[in-house]
Amino acid sequence: MTWPAPGICYGGDYNPEQWPRDVWDEDVRLMREAGVSIVTLGVFAWGTVEVADGVRDWSWLDDAIDLLHAHGIAVDLATPTAAPPSWLLTAHPDITPVLADGYREPPGGRNAWCPAHPVYRRYALRHVEELARRYGAHPAVRLWHVGNELGGGNVRCYCDRSAAAFRAWLADRHGSLDAVNEAWGTAQWGHRFSAWEQIDPPRGRHGAPNPSLYLDFERYSSDALLTQYLAEKEVIARHSAAPVTTNFMVGAGAHIVDYASWAPHTAVVATDHYTLVDDECREQDLALAGDRTRGMSPGRAPWLLMEHSTGAPSWQQRNRAKDPGEIARNALGHVARGADGVLFFQWRASRAGAEQFHSAMLPHGGTRTRVWREVVALGADLRRIAEVAGTRVEPARVAVVVDDAAGWALQHGLMPHRGLSYGRELRAWHRALWDRQVLCDVVPVTAALDGYDLVIVPTLLVVDDDAAARLAGVPERGGTLVVTYLSGICDADGQVIPGGFPGRFRDVLGVWTDEFYPLQPGERVALDDGSTVADWTERVVLDGAQAVVRYTSSSLAGAPAVTERPVGTGAAWYVSAALELDSLGRVVDRLLAETGVPRTVEAPAGVEAVRRVGPGGSYLFLLNHTDAEHAVTGSGAADLAGTDLLTGAAVAGRMLVPPGAARVVREHRTHP
Amino acid sequence: MTWPAPGICYGGDYNPEQWPRDVWDEDVRLMREAGVSIVTLGVFAWGTVEVADGVRDWSWLDDAIDLLHAHGIAVDLATPTAAPPSWLLTAHPDITPVLADGYREPPGGRNAWCPAHPVYRRYALRHVEELARRYGAHPAVRLWHVGNELGGGNVRCYCDRSAAAFRAWLADRHGSLDAVNEAWGTAQWGHRFSAWEQIDPPRGRHGAPNPSLYLDFERYSSDALLTQYLAEKEVIARHSAAPVTTNFMVGAGAHIVDYASWAPHTAVVATDHYTLVDDECREQDLALAGDRTRGMSPGRAPWLLMEHSTGAPSWQQRNRAKDPGEIARNALGHVARGADGVLFFQWRASRAGAEQFHSAMLPHGGTRTRVWREVVALGADLRRIAEVAGTRVEPARVAVVVDDAAGWALQHGLMPHRGLSYGRELRAWHRALWDRQVLCDVVPVTAALDGYDLVIVPTLLVVDDDAAARLAGVPERGGTLVVTYLSGICDADGQVIPGGFPGRFRDVLGVWTDEFYPLQPGERVALDDGSTVADWTERVVLDGAQAVVRYTSSSLAGAPAVTERPVGTGAAWYVSAALELDSLGRVVDRLLAETGVPRTVEAPAGVEAVRRVGPGGSYLFLLNHTDAEHAVTGSGAADLAGTDLLTGAAVAGRMLVPPGAARVVREHRTHP
Amino acid sequence: MTWPAPGICYGGDYNPEQWPRDVWDEDVRLMREAGVSIVTLGVFAWGTVEVADGVRDWSWLDDAIDLLHAHGIAVDLATPTAAPPSWLLTAHPDITPVLADGYREPPGGRNAWCPAHPVYRRYALRHVEELARRYGAHPAVRLWHVGNELGGGNVRCYCDRSAAAFRAWLADRHGSLDAVNEAWGTAQWGHRFSAWEQIDPPRGRHGAPNPSLYLDFERYSSDALLTQYLAEKEVIARHSAAPVTTNFMVGAGAHIVDYASWAPHTAVVATDHYTLVDDECREQDLALAGDRTRGMSPGRAPWLLMEHSTGAPSWQQRNRAKDPGEIARNALGHVARGADGVLFFQWRASRAGAEQFHSAMLPHGGTRTRVWREVVALGADLRRIAEVAGTRVEPARVAVVVDDAAGWALQHGLMPHRGLSYGRELRAWHRALWDRQVLCDVVPVTAALDGYDLVIVPTLLVVDDDAAARLAGVPERGGTLVVTYLSGICDADGQVIPGGFPGRFRDVLGVWTDEFYPLQPGERVALDDGSTVADWTERVVLDGAQAVVRYTSSSLAGAPAVTERPVGTGAAWYVSAALELDSLGRVVDRLLAETGVPRTVEAPAGVEAVRRVGPGGSYLFLLNHTDAEHAVTGSGAADLAGTDLLTGAAVAGRMLVPPGAARVVREHRTHP
Repeated sequence: MTWPAPGICYGGDYNPEQWPRDVWDEDVRLMREAGVSIVTLGVFAWGTVEVADGVRDWSWLDDAIDLLHAHGIAVDLATPTAAPPSWLLTAHPDITPVLADGYREPPGGRNAWCPAHPVYRRYALRHVEELARRYGAHPAVRLWHVGNELGGGNVRCYCDRSAAAFRAWLADRHGSLDAVNEAWGTAQWGHRFSAWEQIDPPRGRHGAPNPSLYLDFERYSSDALLTQYLAEKEVIARHSAAPVTTNFMVGAGAHIVDYASWAPHTAVVATDHYTLVDDECREQDLALAGDRTRGMSPGRAPWLLMEHSTGAPSWQQRNRAKDPGEIARNALGHVARGADGVLFFQWRASRAGAEQFHSAMLPHGGTRTRVWREVVALGADLRRIAEVAGTRVEPARVAVVVDDAAGWALQHGLMPHRGLSYGRELRAWHRALWDRQVLCDVVPVTAALDGYDLVIVPTLLVVDDDAAARLAGVPERGGTLVVTYLSGICDADGQVIPGGFPGRFRDVLGVWTDEFYPLQPGERVALDDGSTVADWTERVVLDGAQAVVRYTSSSLAGAPAVTERPVGTGAAWYVSAALELDSLGRVVDRLLAETGVPRTVEAPAGVEAVRRVGPGGSYLFLLNHTDAEHAVTGSGAADLAGTDLLTGAAVAGRMLVPPGAARVVREHRTHP
Repeated sequence: MTWPAPGICYGGDYNPEQWPRDVWDEDVRLMREAGVSIVTLGVFAWGTVEVADGVRDWSWLDDAIDLLHAHGIAVDLATPTAAPPSWLLTAHPDITPVLADGYREPPGGRNAWCPAHPVYRRYALRHVEELARRYGAHPAVRLWHVGNELGGGNVRCYCDRSAAAFRAWLADRHGSLDAVNEAWGTAQWGHRFSAWEQIDPPRGRHGAPNPSLYLDFERYSSDALLTQYLAEKEVIARHSAAPVTTNFMVGAGAHIVDYASWAPHTAVVATDHYTLVDDECREQDLALAGDRTRGMSPGRAPWLLMEHSTGAPSWQQRNRAKDPGEIARNALGHVARGADGVLFFQWRASRAGAEQFHSAMLPHGGTRTRVWREVVALGADLRRIAEVAGTRVEPARVAVVVDDAAGWALQHGLMPHRGLSYGRELRAWHRALWDRQVLCDVVPVTAALDGYDLVIVPTLLVVDDDAAARLAGVPERGGTLVVTYLSGICDADGQVIPGGFPGRFRDVLGVWTDEFYPLQPGERVALDDGSTVADWTERVVLDGAQAVVRYTSSSLAGAPAVTERPVGTGAAWYVSAALELDSLGRVVDRLLAETGVPRTVEAPAGVEAVRRVGPGGSYLFLLNHTDAEHAVTGSGAADLAGTDLLTGAAVAGRMLVPPGAARVVREHRTHP
Repeated sequence: MTWPAPGICYGGDYNPEQWPRDVWDEDVRLMREAGVSIVTLGVFAWGTVEVADGVRDWSWLDDAIDLLHAHGIAVDLATPTAAPPSWLLTAHPDITPVLADGYREPPGGRNAWCPAHPVYRRYALRHVEELARRYGAHPAVRLWHVGNELGGGNVRCYCDRSAAAFRAWLADRHGSLDAVNEAWGTAQWGHRFSAWEQIDPPRGRHGAPNPSLYLDFERYSSDALLTQYLAEKEVIARHSAAPVTTNFMVGAGAHIVDYASWAPHTAVVATDHYTLVDDECREQDLALAGDRTRGMSPGRAPWLLMEHSTGAPSWQQRNRAKDPGEIARNALGHVARGADGVLFFQWRASRAGAEQFHSAMLPHGGTRTRVWREVVALGADLRRIAEVAGTRVEPARVAVVVDDAAGWALQHGLMPHRGLSYGRELRAWHRALWDRQVLCDVVPVTAALDGYDLVIVPTLLVVDDDAAARLAGVPERGGTLVVTYLSGICDADGQVIPGGFPGRFRDVLGVWTDEFYPLQPGERVALDDGSTVADWTERVVLDGAQAVVRYTSSSLAGAPAVTERPVGTGAAWYVSAALELDSLGRVVDRLLAETGVPRTVEAPAGVEAVRRVGPGGSYLFLLNHTDAEHAVTGSGAADLAGTDLLTGAAVAGRMLVPPGAARVVREHRTHP
């Protein structure tokens, strides 16, 4: 696709409808001062355009687009379907979704519509059609933005319309009611269905007792929203050649919808990311989101950061501003991991409404604020590194395999350890690699794994035959496969694979597990290499593998905790315990040594390093997240050599990165 | 008004309908033994009088009033509208209020009626009319008591009737739908209303996303209940010349309704107060409630403590009895702060019902209990200090400014720091003054501020132009104004005032704030005078003010935390950080020194001292809340001199107050 | 009754309908290998038999029963009424129960039916009749199992049908509406009822404000479920001579229904027991459940453990497997306390459904697992001790008196200390006895108390005249009565008994309590014997008793905490404080010394010892729950002498019990 604006896109959500017309002139003047090249327009502008049923006032939107175009600012035009107009919700109050306990959300929020509601669908598509017809060929419109964070407010609807849609989806997936009974094991508790209408969404205050029902309903819910996205996209395509996408919310856990299956339907993968003020390592969370977004982008193509923040969000408990320098470090962190655009929510801070205290590029305090100065400086930095645009992140030799369905299954129902989040182990492994400046792709379970030397599979509870076969292929071709506890236990229907845990991985790992011993809160057990474990242990029996680390305390003393089974020149490891961070690092060091996967640079933990490469050059991003200056040198024998694009300084051998600073070095090396 | 009983009123709620007739005789005999001069009668006596629709059995109430009158006990007669009869609720089940999530409260509690319900209104006023007609001229009836703790059980109703009433209220306040859209900033999230019926109360499980909608609904809800009060009052006034009031629940936080706007409609301000067993300084909470009740009493006139307890309440988690001496110390604490009556809930402990374990003047254990002995002793003490009645608390030189609407705004919606209570900072400042025996009036934001040397404004998030002007006038006339963080941010609609925080107070304070840095739970930062801060910090930029204290840790190190801007002979201070108690005390010491505001006496923290003065004399109340004896001396050069009315002892120079004891000294000094 | 299988019954729930037919053959083969003698069949097999309204497919059940019978395995045949078929719930969606807040449970769980629903009743009894007619005379069917854990999922229903049934129940209990008003004290808060239809179940989000209403509704709810049980039993009895029971869930707290009143309606008392993984002494909880089950079994006859687990349950937070040896120790612990059968939920681990991760006799890992080996070994152990079957636990000299209604009252409403569980004090006293190898019967308040030397009454809030008289009789006949705080306060209607606490027990104890001082979380106070107290203290006044221990801290310093009143050769003790475990042990030591009640053996805490005796012999069960070997000797001068049935070893004088081990010694002593 044609990138919507040259270089690294820069901008944010722009809501001119919240402001008097005379503010707009200041807006575009300051946008140019900050180097803004693109804004997202009209995300919530349904009711302000379609002021009554079928009556549209396009004037303000015409003016806004023309004004932006006149100032050379590209428009990412949103379909405003996230928020139906008040008149529509009043006329059809059952458009809002129903929660699992039967509670119908009142109007007043956003993304509050049932994806199975035909009236919503009809009005939404009608308006999208009018919008696309009017602006589809406007030269300012360089990108389409469908809805907003689809699923963010209405990931699941349990209404009767959704129940009917769910049944149709089930018939399609399973073929027959008998097959559903079989897949869900409904003989338990006498729940066997004798007619389709006996099946409901997993209603109730505490979710579905039946984990298979829950899992299928999650899949249906993701597909139901994807259907809405595809319908809007199809309407747009009839009127516009501009590319179409929607903003995901990629993160470190199980997603609200299965983004990996959505990504192929976007012209460019776009995502939002917000750091959590109480995250003890929020920069790593940001990096993981980048690695995972790239991992689902076809061909690892550059992606778009559609939203992040210049400072305090307004939806957390204690919304803290960012520290000096953090804005640039965060934005460049996204670029380092493959983003060719960094946009903020939002351009100008709102005076009223739910988000009145959300930070913006232009704060309440105006241009005299520190935020504004940093926003302007970031715009300049992005222009300095414009040549990075179009390059790709260097191919990773490590993959971490993820699957939203596995996460949904893990986090629901009467699991051996309720409350264990899918993101826990995923983030721990990524953290250990991040601390060591080792790049990994976080890839969906459906991805090809051929190129990776080390493939890590954290808590992949549900695995189908195909994925199991591809994963088993890793050690067979000489790679190293690492599987953690709570992986491979269930088939795609969520049924336990008989014969002992970890089901699908028993053979390749050469172990089987007798029983689970999740630890109680605060409980720790020790291993014979000095490691400590929290939350999860199990009784592993060797069946071809050898013990790498063993328990020294608890009733498991002497039993294996980490095992390895050599497979030709490859190996299959099982990490059966939830290792604490330092202990996990010890395993990772050993894996890196055995596989020969190098670090990107040599630097202490807290200094992030990623390389982007392209036909034109190689670019090393260095981000010092600590409050001390650190020296960075090349990995192994290699020296650093090049020019820092941000400061213009020459780099030779080693480089000192000041506390909190970011560097982008154009390297004297060619693309491998 | 004519005070309902001579001296300091003494008594409590009396519910003879819960007891056989033969118990009543014991009741009045023991009331006389305890010195009871007034009882509140009939608070929940609707269904026991109107036994069926329009059918009334007055006999027991006739008898009870006559019996009390015969024994010289005044009656505070309640309209029983807090609890409609079961037959009325069964016939009209939609009288009970609906919560924000659509849940309709079942009958079985109290104050469970929608103030917008016409059937409730009609039946309530019909019964009040019958009651007032029957007893309006009875000589025993010296006061009317409308309902009970209005809003305590039904502060907000979200039903469709309430929605309609809310829309009418909005039309009245804002004039037009366009004005509502403007005031609430409905362009955000596409919420613009095109017809009145699209506006609902802030329904939903998590309240209103739009803070302006929430704020207006709180105002409406307060007004809706006030309307009920005024309607009952108007009916009573047609039949009785006795004064009319209702029992508030004045406390240290944002009230459930805006009592300050209700107070002018009462003949005497009356309030209930219960200490919390887990309050680490419950005596200060009691004092603050008194200072705030007095602060809203027109002319600082004496007020009435309508309910407190002799011991354990029954609605807390672990309901502990009071320690020996605490009953008298609490009661005299209220009198010290301006109460000319101290009543208890309730006279005789109930055997059954929700409040069966609530303490009473006459406990389950009867007259051999410690509580009964202390109740009798308190009655005697009140007679000893009868001459205090009618005097007023000595004029305070310090005011603390409060506003319920500001509190409502602070505690709702996506605030920078969710969970920060309005009472937090209010109570901290009052505590620092209380520890130092410095009297303050806690006054509504609408109050005249002329007489005060020091005016403290804690977390006054929402401020209108008029209040901002009056507050700015304080330093201009030579006073000292102290404003804390999260003040002046929003206008009366709850919209952020542009140009930087703290909006309305930027100019007078000579500072502006760049960004907020609320602290995470457990986090502390240090200031350069040794102070420590929890919960809230921000980045202040000096703009005319000078720094008094600066940060030494966190990313704000070096930035100002407390500032002062001299204004002629006055000064304007900004306290931008949430100082911990000791640290706040340091600022208060400095403010007292600069303003020359004296302490009432010299005594350690924990010894409370307040003076009431009148044409006839000056009375110094001393309450030792500690478990050690303490010496009290006059403030500055002044000596104590007088007579302790409770013990008859002469006081000269200094006075020793035993642990837990109370003293009331008639001073040898004339009214200033 | 005829015991369903010879010796100690062994087996579990068997759900062949979850598995293909070819698995069944393996099942019966492995059952025989494990020594299984009985299985519970068909608990959830309604929908798999009655596949449509009135259409029944008995074939699989015919086959299963015949197959089991052919292999000599007895059948405990369940009525499958716990889980109505999906077609019935879809046709009659109002069969599911309604919660207190009006929420109707959706289908998808179990025990989800309103006991007052006539359609449910009709269909349930119709199916039970067909079932009983078909299998009532089958030789394999040795026991009937009505429903499953009645009340576990539907202990209370608040629907309108239940409201009507509740009113009828009230009319039956109280006789008139006036009597209800009187019993509930409805004059408070003006709640007096003038017609029956004004009475509802205690609906609302926070339960009933009126504690008497709550208490009666609990009683009604227990009776409503008992009615269903009795109706099914009556139908069965028309077609089968086999005994009928249902599985209780006896535990350490207030039960969901009043099992003590149900027990006489069962042919054998049966109960389920699951240990809690985070219970710091889960073996004592198991022992208490056994002592309480036996305590309600008429004549202390042997009872049946209908369900327990071989390892991790699936409904706790972190479901941990049992440690090696724990399976046998738990099972033999039940036998020690009177069980003549130990069954598990379930035979074979399920692959799907809510309970897919619940442990089983045959785990997912199959016969190579540790669990399977221990299950087989336990079967052999049970055969070794088969002669124990039919003996009874040796008569206890200590009784602990319990009452579910008192527990319901204690745990609901505006109690002096909300959150104090009924099980707290009950379990503390039992623990102190358990630590000392002193056997007690945990008996219902209605039990005869003649045989006991020491009778302990923990937190028996509600007591009727009859029970009070029987308890007062204990010291009069020379026994020792111990009453704790929060006992005897209320009459059977839940009304406070006037005259001072502890109401019904004031006279016998010779004390009265002035006021309650529950402690705040974390607060501790000290007594003069070095004891410490948490949670509860009160101000006791001596009135005939003498102080045994007094407070030394808090405002109660000097006041009595534990008192004793000599009554002839007996004594009445009052323990007014919630003593911590060690402190309580000191009181128990004193009570044992004074009463001369001996320990079963001499052994350290953590070694459990119980004796079963019968005409044929005396059997000493020893369970070492610690991780160290311990020596056990006879109590007092007695030597141990006999043969360990499990190992065949001779025992003389003392016996060494290895860590975690169980022993069953056939003693050389005759039945006393």
